[in-house]
Amino acid sequence: MNARRITPVILSGGAGTRLWPLSREHYPKQLLALSGPRSMLEETLQRFTDATRFPPPLIITNEALRFPVAEQLLHSGMTGGSIVLEPVARNTAPAVAAAALMAVAADPEAMILVVASDHVIGDIPGFLGRVQAALPAAQAGRLITFSIIPTRPETGYGYIHHGAPLAGHPELFDVAAFVEKPDVERAQRFVAAGDYFWNSGMFLFSAQTFLDELALHAPAVLEAAGRSLAERQTDPQFVRLGAEAFAASPKISVDYAVMEHTDRAATIPCDIGWADVGSWGELWAIADKDADGNVVIGDGMAERARNCYIRSDHKLVAVLGIDDLVVISTDDAVLVMPRQRSQDTRLVVDRLRDAKRSELTSHSRVLRPWGSYQSIQTGERF
Amino acid sequence: MNARRITPVILSGGAGTRLWPLSREHYPKQLLALSGPRSMLEETLQRFTDATRFPPPLIITNEALRFPVAEQLLHSGMTGGSIVLEPVARNTAPAVAAAALMAVAADPEAMILVVASDHVIGDIPGFLGRVQAALPAAQAGRLITFSIIPTRPETGYGYIHHGAPLAGHPELFDVAAFVEKPDVERAQRFVAAGDYFWNSGMFLFSAQTFLDELALHAPAVLEAAGRSLAERQTDPQFVRLGAEAFAASPKISVDYAVMEHTDRAATIPCDIGWADVGSWGELWAIADKDADGNVVIGDGMAERARNCYIRSDHKLVAVLGIDDLVVISTDDAVLVMPRQRSQDTRLVVDRLRDAKRSELTSHSRVLRPWGSYQSIQTGERF
Repeated sequence: MNARRITPVILSGGAGTRLWPLSREHYPKQLLALSGPRSMLEETLQRFTDATRFPPPLIITNEALRFPVAEQLLHSGMTGGSIVLEPVARNTAPAVAAAALMAVAADPEAMILVVASDHVIGDIPGFLGRVQAALPAAQAGRLITFSIIPTRPETGYGYIHHGAPLAGHPELFDVAAFVEKPDVERAQRFVAAGDYFWNSGMFLFSAQTFLDELALHAPAVLEAAGRSLAERQTDPQFVRLGAEAFAASPKISVDYAVMEHTDRAATIPCDIGWADVGSWGELWAIADKDADGNVVIGDGMAERARNCYIRSDHKLVAVLGIDDLVVISTDDAVLVMPRQRSQDTRLVVDRLRDAKRSELTSHSRVLRPWGSYQSIQTGERF
Repeated sequence: MNARRITPVILSGGAGTRLWPLSREHYPKQLLALSGPRSMLEETLQRFTDATRFPPPLIITNEALRFPVAEQLLHSGMTGGSIVLEPVARNTAPAVAAAALMAVAADPEAMILVVASDHVIGDIPGFLGRVQAALPAAQAGRLITFSIIPTRPETGYGYIHHGAPLAGHPELFDVAAFVEKPDVERAQRFVAAGDYFWNSGMFLFSAQTFLDELALHAPAVLEAAGRSLAERQTDPQFVRLGAEAFAASPKISVDYAVMEHTDRAATIPCDIGWADVGSWGELWAIADKDADGNVVIGDGMAERARNCYIRSDHKLVAVLGIDDLVVISTDDAVLVMPRQRSQDTRLVVDRLRDAKRSELTSHSRVLRPWGSYQSIQTGERF
């Protein structure tokens, strides 16, 4: 008998401008090549190429992003895979509900692995090992959330407080509590305590178990998802969920709708180089650096500079005598700011929104500095 | 009888990359609009529009710059004006010698005013007043150099040490000495002393007197200039000096060839808002600033920033939370550096030269941020 296969459910409907000027309202983070030559979505897809363990994925996105998502799925080399379009954003619970219903319709015993499309995972074998380690408990009816061993008192993530080890599954733990993003003092206490972990927002469960718990704790979500699926329109490329039905769902996350209420929650701690890169400063932190601490991506040049993050997709960027700066150059915009303030991109974004500037919404060319530019540093093509 | 008219001789053959990425080897400073909507050369031409005082100018430039120079002369609205092309760079003395020979050929009593094409002069009436004040002494056979009342211990300029007031011309002084660019301690002593002035490199003299002194102190220059003029090729647009003859001249400045040796030198101190802007920091210093000390030219946006110089010719530049930076964005390059290090642009330029990068040599589009961009600051068009 084959080992049980797990359907990847890839959430790819998110929008965001924290990585402006690269990320745009109509071209968010998951479509961008941020930590290598492939986009975050492509990186995500590449984690599930082993067909003996994973059937083709189910990607949830929206109308605005459907073509780039389809293109990236095509370029991933995967055969199959479904693209489901949310008519409107309702957070993660209704999207995962629809995915679980589709999975159960195909196989009543389907297992699903819910992942974001914009997370970095440095250690893929490690990640897949944790999925495998969690599978027996998930098959036994547990809803598994993946928790990340924290490496710093990060205030940008939610935390999971671990409870007792799970009987019969010594690598897993009960969930004592889900904790919202803390302030820095609490974050420091969490890291010192040793039993608080970052909440990665990734889940493994039997689709039917999830639907059962959803019926118990958030029936309105389940009903909306079910109706939107019944009213779907399917063409060769996309599955469009029924708009009115889907819009009737509460706007709620999987954590809030199910995980915080169910007594079936369990968690598995992971040390897999995970990051939800939400700022240029974080991208600098996880990148390989040169001897001066600089990260130079694309056609950039750092002279007497230290600890800078420089990225140019479209023309030469030269920095001279500066420390700790982020410089991002795209086809139509340049951003310069201190690395330590890179959480404040919204201050710029808000002004661009007020000014109705197109540099906030749309991108004009595919943004792939790798593979197409000559580095002045090395003279080599990436 | 008309007052004696003065032929402007505008030296416009200079190259330089101190204002990279705007200034390029094939598109130097004088062709750029740096302190307003007109280029430095156009600003220079505008100083001589009063035909009752100035006949059409004589512009000395080179083959590589002849078309932009001709275009800017045309756009200046001046009728007439000659463009003389140096076959090779030989510093200022042979160029001024050729100009003086041409002026004398047209009028044996011609007066010429030698100016650079890349200097800022804030107070044009003041400047013209000083020219007028110096004219009688120049007509009486003095070689007048314009000295600038120093406002700071600048190490980027040469100095003129004033001697005694000139008999019969109380506003003018003898030249005690020409002084090379000093170090900062000497510059501070010069400014404190009160009788040291910046050497502007502008001159007023009778063309014949200059030629007489040249024959005395630098006959090889005069001979080369005379021969190159005899061998000139003239077409409707340009006067091309004979190449071999001109190349035979020593490479020497007017100061070295004549002014430091002649006993006819005199100087007139000027307070006319003069600057030889050689760095982005200097351009920041002379520009109007907003309440936070920022200068934003073109499509730029400064958020929580102070004392920055931001110039974008081609796309949105947003800076956030930075102080004392220069950010320059052109069609093909971006430069970011501390304002205080803007004398060090050569460090970048040298690397670009080693890498044979086109961003150093040629410009691809006319660079005029004024008049064509919407400011996000004000919503107004410049």
